[in-house]
Amino acid sequence: KNNFFLIAGPCVVESAELLEEVAYTVSGICKKLAIPYIFKASYKKANRTSANSFTGIGDEKALGLIQAIGKKYHIPLTTDVHTAEECAIAAQYVDVLQIPAFLCRQTDLLIAAAQTGKVVNVKKGQFLSGESMRFAVEKLRNEGNEKIMLTERGTTFGYHDLVVDFRNIPLMKANDVPAVMDCTHSLQQPNQSGGVTGGNPGMIETIAKCAIAAGADGLFIETHPQPAVAKSDGANMLQLDKLEEMLEKLVKLRSAII
Amino acid sequence: KNNFFLIAGPCVVESAELLEEVAYTVSGICKKLAIPYIFKASYKKANRTSANSFTGIGDEKALGLIQAIGKKYHIPLTTDVHTAEECAIAAQYVDVLQIPAFLCRQTDLLIAAAQTGKVVNVKKGQFLSGESMRFAVEKLRNEGNEKIMLTERGTTFGYHDLVVDFRNIPLMKANDVPAVMDCTHSLQQPNQSGGVTGGNPGMIETIAKCAIAAGADGLFIETHPQPAVAKSDGANMLQLDKLEEMLEKLVKLRSAII
Amino acid sequence: KNNFFLIAGPCVVESAELLEEVAYTVSGICKKLAIPYIFKASYKKANRTSANSFTGIGDEKALGLIQAIGKKYHIPLTTDVHTAEECAIAAQYVDVLQIPAFLCRQTDLLIAAAQTGKVVNVKKGQFLSGESMRFAVEKLRNEGNEKIMLTERGTTFGYHDLVVDFRNIPLMKANDVPAVMDCTHSLQQPNQSGGVTGGNPGMIETIAKCAIAAGADGLFIETHPQPAVAKSDGANMLQLDKLEEMLEKLVKLRSAII
Amino acid sequence: KNNFFLIAGPCVVESAELLEEVAYTVSGICKKLAIPYIFKASYKKANRTSANSFTGIGDEKALGLIQAIGKKYHIPLTTDVHTAEECAIAAQYVDVLQIPAFLCRQTDLLIAAAQTGKVVNVKKGQFLSGESMRFAVEKLRNEGNEKIMLTERGTTFGYHDLVVDFRNIPLMKANDVPAVMDCTHSLQQPNQSGGVTGGNPGMIETIAKCAIAAGADGLFIETHPQPAVAKSDGANMLQLDKLEEMLEKLVKLRSAII
Repeated sequence: KNNFFLIAGPCVVESAELLEEVAYTVSGICKKLAIPYIFKASYKKANRTSANSFTGIGDEKALGLIQAIGKKYHIPLTTDVHTAEECAIAAQYVDVLQIPAFLCRQTDLLIAAAQTGKVVNVKKGQFLSGESMRFAVEKLRNEGNEKIMLTERGTTFGYHDLVVDFRNIPLMKANDVPAVMDCTHSLQQPNQSGGVTGGNPGMIETIAKCAIAAGADGLFIETHPQPAVAKSDGANMLQLDKLEEMLEKLVKLRSAII
Repeated sequence: KNNFFLIAGPCVVESAELLEEVAYTVSGICKKLAIPYIFKASYKKANRTSANSFTGIGDEKALGLIQAIGKKYHIPLTTDVHTAEECAIAAQYVDVLQIPAFLCRQTDLLIAAAQTGKVVNVKKGQFLSGESMRFAVEKLRNEGNEKIMLTERGTTFGYHDLVVDFRNIPLMKANDVPAVMDCTHSLQQPNQSGGVTGGNPGMIETIAKCAIAAGADGLFIETHPQPAVAKSDGANMLQLDKLEEMLEKLVKLRSAII
Repeated sequence: KNNFFLIAGPCVVESAELLEEVAYTVSGICKKLAIPYIFKASYKKANRTSANSFTGIGDEKALGLIQAIGKKYHIPLTTDVHTAEECAIAAQYVDVLQIPAFLCRQTDLLIAAAQTGKVVNVKKGQFLSGESMRFAVEKLRNEGNEKIMLTERGTTFGYHDLVVDFRNIPLMKANDVPAVMDCTHSLQQPNQSGGVTGGNPGMIETIAKCAIAAGADGLFIETHPQPAVAKSDGANMLQLDKLEEMLEKLVKLRSAII
Repeated sequence: KNNFFLIAGPCVVESAELLEEVAYTVSGICKKLAIPYIFKASYKKANRTSANSFTGIGDEKALGLIQAIGKKYHIPLTTDVHTAEECAIAAQYVDVLQIPAFLCRQTDLLIAAAQTGKVVNVKKGQFLSGESMRFAVEKLRNEGNEKIMLTERGTTFGYHDLVVDFRNIPLMKANDVPAVMDCTHSLQQPNQSGGVTGGNPGMIETIAKCAIAAGADGLFIETHPQPAVAKSDGANMLQLDKLEEMLEKLVKLRSAII
């Protein structure tokens, strides 16, 4: 009832086995803790730093694997879309369409996502203020879609770091939409010289706690059984076996929010 | 021979008359000052802050008007593209495809642009370092396209301001590609509460002079006979009748660069 | 026992009546909520933006008024010092010497403060990382003083805004010292054209809650019965009659931190 | 007549021999290139990151060595002051009192510097806008001192980098005072984990050229025959034998500024 919800999963669909392991574990924890759970995985990575990075196992194959998780565990699903065309395709498989932060100002993409009738979760660009997200909300509402979520994922702070400005949580909620905190991407260390984005998983719990304290309605956490061998975002995902203990603390914290 | 080149024009195709006025004036100035000139106009605006902003007069109509300018004045043309599909279309009309800053990490878009065989001009994202642009260059070169330009357009500096880091000019040139300074968008004041991006045209000359001093190969300047009534970016375009005097100063400055 | 402590008071000593009103009210609330309370007021303002701003009623007179509050209410006292000479003087009146953020790198000042044997509370400069504060701690410990606190008060984020990076709370605590969150100065809007720093008191509660969630040991809150007529920092102080309700929420939140 | 002036020297007085070598070389170059030259060295370093860093050879001894340089080479002198008391002392030895960036808001220091009647050069804090420096100018003019210079030395840009915003050159000149570009400290890389500030001397020429292009009246360059063994700021000083070639380019550039 008054708990936060959780969007979680591996960064990208690597294999059926990976999705199964993560969904089994996280859905079990969330049932125990009464946390509404939305399974997340990207079916393709469209904006990797380097051309040599892994981008996916094939779009339809990956979307099918995501869909199978939803059926097996009876949980809603989300994935991210990158063009107007992808919206209609992905909408056949998932319940929530996520707009990537770099693309949050692309009007055609927002309109196409809204027109699917699915929930649309817009990530705040690293270059945008929380207040400016009201224009993204307007673009979606103009299409008659009121199922909107906004996600904070950190703001550009010099070239090699992001900072989370928690004022953005109440500012985004002022649009009468749920505000989500992306606790893993917001710890990215971008613009690394090797072409692989860095991270700081030791701070995930601090970011998550602050988000709950600031009134976030949901948390977004990428998790993987072995981040060190993950095919994307290994530097900032939470190790799967650390999730339960952290969520317990967060549920307790949430209960003290008035 | 050793002069800088100029990419200039109105922000967006508003009418045939506007393109004609700007192209006639700027091509005349550039001929006089021996500045190689590339005419620029957007055929559509895909990432306006607000859904209520002007986005264009129709894509093909606008592209046709741009093309007519090239034929009449014998000058190369550029416009910006937003999806992989748009690349092949726009390539039929213009010589240089410009990748918008927000989209500079979208691998599919870069690949599609490269595959047209046209020159590709990638604007540096407000969230990227000059060094990171080498990964954009790699993505283009992987497709066998060596006709590449990189453009600096300012970096996120708090929510309501951009800052130009001129270290990025030599850092981008280190990829053996021309570096361009966008002297007007880099003065934008984003995230204004009214939903219309602000600007600071009084600083255009300072930015342009610094760019020449830092070794920029080209300048990008949006210009309009009456910025105050322009349908996009009116707050930061240079008034057309101020262009010649400024370019004279810049040509003199360029001649003193060693 | 496990509660946070509170450093609070008006920005500057304006009059005996003001100190009395604030100390009476805040000490009453803190007794009720079992919050250890340290009374704070500046006896002079040394770094006002403009030469025309109020700087104080006279140093010794102001220090005397602060001292009287401590005697009457049996509470520890703090004020800020700006030169090595001021340390020995202020140490005769107060229990905690506060080093202003702009001065946190002035070695002579830190040494003089440490040598008084009083508690030294160093505010993190707007230009420093949480990690770098370990060098301030070292400078104090080198003088044999282990009574150290560190305070986060926001980081430069463009010219006209500060951002609070809550990663700094655990990073500063890693020095085995209490970390304090300055919930009012961190909301300053600096570099206003009128020469008076702005603020955003509507966000004080959000910053305070996040600080508790991030593990802060203490909160610093400037408060005034009528901020609009205060002689300094009126734009960011908390109105005195809003303090109790907010502290109740924070005490509840603190009890849920594990 | 229309040339820029140069403030240059080693970061700190290490020895008489060092001052002699630098002053001999730089004054020779400046005479050849018709650049007015002001010799600079700090007699003590008051805000080193770490307590273990070198702070000086003794104040009066260092000031005496600086003074001897002025007499021998018939050049004006500058050094930085940190407290009101130091102003009167340093004013006996040098012609220009420099206010460090961290201290540019300390009203007592500015007033004491102004009251010496010497030229006062205020460095813009890493946390201040160019526009805000008008309040520093006012504080000095209030004391009847009109001999004022303002220096840009970079702005906080994340924790580990500074960025130079060249808009600040015309903004500071708008106060009818000379604007100086500090080409070496503005390339500092602060908050390094080892407690020693980093630098990027390969970019000094780019910063200096942009400054001239933006209309700076003077350049500030710390230089040392062997930066790698310098006792302070070794990471960002210009190697002495690279100065002449760079200044030749800058003089040529300056002649093309209109």
